[in-house]
Amino acid sequence: MLTVNAYAATSATEPLVPTTIERRDVGPHDVLIDIKFAGICHSDIHTARGDWGPASYPLVPGHEIAGIVSEIGSAVTKHAVGDRVGVGCMVNSCRECVNCLQGEEQFCVAGNTGTYGAMDRDGTVTQGGYSTHVVVTEDFVVRIPDALALDVAAPLLCAGITTYSPLNHWGAGPGKKVAIVGLGGLGHVAVKIAHAMGAEVTVLSQSLKKQEDGLRLGADHYYATNDPSTFDQLAGSFDLILNTVSAKSDLDAYLSLLAVGGAMVNVGAPAEPLSLNVFSLIFGRRSYAGSLIGGIRETQEMLDFCAEHELGAEIEVIPAEKINDAYERVLASDVRYRFVIDTATLG
Amino acid sequence: MLTVNAYAATSATEPLVPTTIERRDVGPHDVLIDIKFAGICHSDIHTARGDWGPASYPLVPGHEIAGIVSEIGSAVTKHAVGDRVGVGCMVNSCRECVNCLQGEEQFCVAGNTGTYGAMDRDGTVTQGGYSTHVVVTEDFVVRIPDALALDVAAPLLCAGITTYSPLNHWGAGPGKKVAIVGLGGLGHVAVKIAHAMGAEVTVLSQSLKKQEDGLRLGADHYYATNDPSTFDQLAGSFDLILNTVSAKSDLDAYLSLLAVGGAMVNVGAPAEPLSLNVFSLIFGRRSYAGSLIGGIRETQEMLDFCAEHELGAEIEVIPAEKINDAYERVLASDVRYRFVIDTATLG
Repeated sequence: MLTVNAYAATSATEPLVPTTIERRDVGPHDVLIDIKFAGICHSDIHTARGDWGPASYPLVPGHEIAGIVSEIGSAVTKHAVGDRVGVGCMVNSCRECVNCLQGEEQFCVAGNTGTYGAMDRDGTVTQGGYSTHVVVTEDFVVRIPDALALDVAAPLLCAGITTYSPLNHWGAGPGKKVAIVGLGGLGHVAVKIAHAMGAEVTVLSQSLKKQEDGLRLGADHYYATNDPSTFDQLAGSFDLILNTVSAKSDLDAYLSLLAVGGAMVNVGAPAEPLSLNVFSLIFGRRSYAGSLIGGIRETQEMLDFCAEHELGAEIEVIPAEKINDAYERVLASDVRYRFVIDTATLG
Repeated sequence: MLTVNAYAATSATEPLVPTTIERRDVGPHDVLIDIKFAGICHSDIHTARGDWGPASYPLVPGHEIAGIVSEIGSAVTKHAVGDRVGVGCMVNSCRECVNCLQGEEQFCVAGNTGTYGAMDRDGTVTQGGYSTHVVVTEDFVVRIPDALALDVAAPLLCAGITTYSPLNHWGAGPGKKVAIVGLGGLGHVAVKIAHAMGAEVTVLSQSLKKQEDGLRLGADHYYATNDPSTFDQLAGSFDLILNTVSAKSDLDAYLSLLAVGGAMVNVGAPAEPLSLNVFSLIFGRRSYAGSLIGGIRETQEMLDFCAEHELGAEIEVIPAEKINDAYERVLASDVRYRFVIDTATLG
């Protein structure tokens, strides 16, 4: 067992505090990672605060992990000491079900093992990346190519794959008109990726406040959704709309922006049910779909793609003691566009 | 002008009555069709009764038309006198918009011209197939192959294309598990077509009342949706669910039956908005979509497919004076599976 520094939530209502946690011994198939950076994802906040159901405390969040391999188990073949690696939202799955066998571990029939707050295969509760080290089975560790700095790579492990996977599946590319709804942690990476894929990219944001950023990141067009004329102007325009916003939105209005055969894909998800008029889909053979991170193989593919296009997240690196401030700023949308914890500051 | 016999609704509340209507002179690009059979579609009843908004009376319904060409215009090249032909839900469109140019006239940006109750290009109101003759521009007339009898072919012009198009677009075929929700006018044709495409077909019907029929028509499995264990048993099973039911249904329950990457496509549509939990889509990269009839080219493709597989609708042929009875029986689901009017009885 290895005792390591971490930052943990101790209840749904109190700030996160410095602590120490135990990491398991490195097993034959395990990799010990010296964590360098950990991104702060909005879902860390939801989970720490019990928004999605009761959490198990102390809870160390963090599923956007970038670091260096510092030890490997005797049977490890995929990684070597010194390798630059990442860990995302999952650290294991059943590996036997139809979805795992197809490399879609995120849809493991038995349920994948989340990187934090989940029951691990050995009966312990997993703890995430706001920590100096983590031990992960080698199959759930991905390579971070040299072309990507570890700090800007960290958020790709969740925000990157969450947007790359649907853009990839729904065919974003040359000749395709793609709209990204929301220019936040997910949306800003989505703009970069969709642009790198060759699509014509439009940002649909509440206001024009971040327009300059959006265009700099690769968007071709930028519209404010608080301007009702936007919906008239863009009616029937898009082959694909990627909705990164978790707040409830007017589905029928967004679906009206799709061309014939177009799809709107949600990666953000409001907890309450949404209302939808089926005619919004029938007229135009439109689809409304959802997508959840991506499998391990696709996560590696995403990192390789981002490296090839020299594309990382836009980040603000913070020391650990700023985590609670950062949480408040995320909730206030006061971040451009992802906080990344420098884990050297965990002491 | 040609004065022809027809059956018309004169108000939203009164029975249909025998009448005569005028058909336009055969223009250079027109075809005069001697109608032999006209199917009764549920939407005829909705339209006649003003359920979808005020109709223009007198209204002659009917958009499942099968007949013989009896005269052609001077410039007609696609059809000859004596040809067996059909007309479906559209008799014209703008022919210039992006969707028309792609053969998706059902999604004409300017709006296609419906076969009845629509404003025609010449400013008159179109009248449908419950009539002895109709004049239609040749591009919206399709060939009915010799292998298909005209009576069983008629319902294919709406029920056939409405189900063929989504089955075709979403890839029903060998190795695919396809569920058809509802075994009515649309559903029974969908079962035949999906089976002919080589898919493994399951009927999801309210009860097991029509199970024997379903299996005879080509279904491999048949389940009752009024049995709650059906939803547990079939969770995650289907690549495609084609929902032919217009009544409001529990979307989240049906979406839970989709495998990863699966799609549920509605061709029936309740007027009220539906409620949907986005997590039903996100967990499993599932899609919820809609589809509307099909283009003219695809309608021809559907008829050729049905002829190749010797597949027509299951029908009950009625004389014109039974139209009002038939409407009541359609509303009571007392038809296996489509009424077809023998237009020789129009006098």
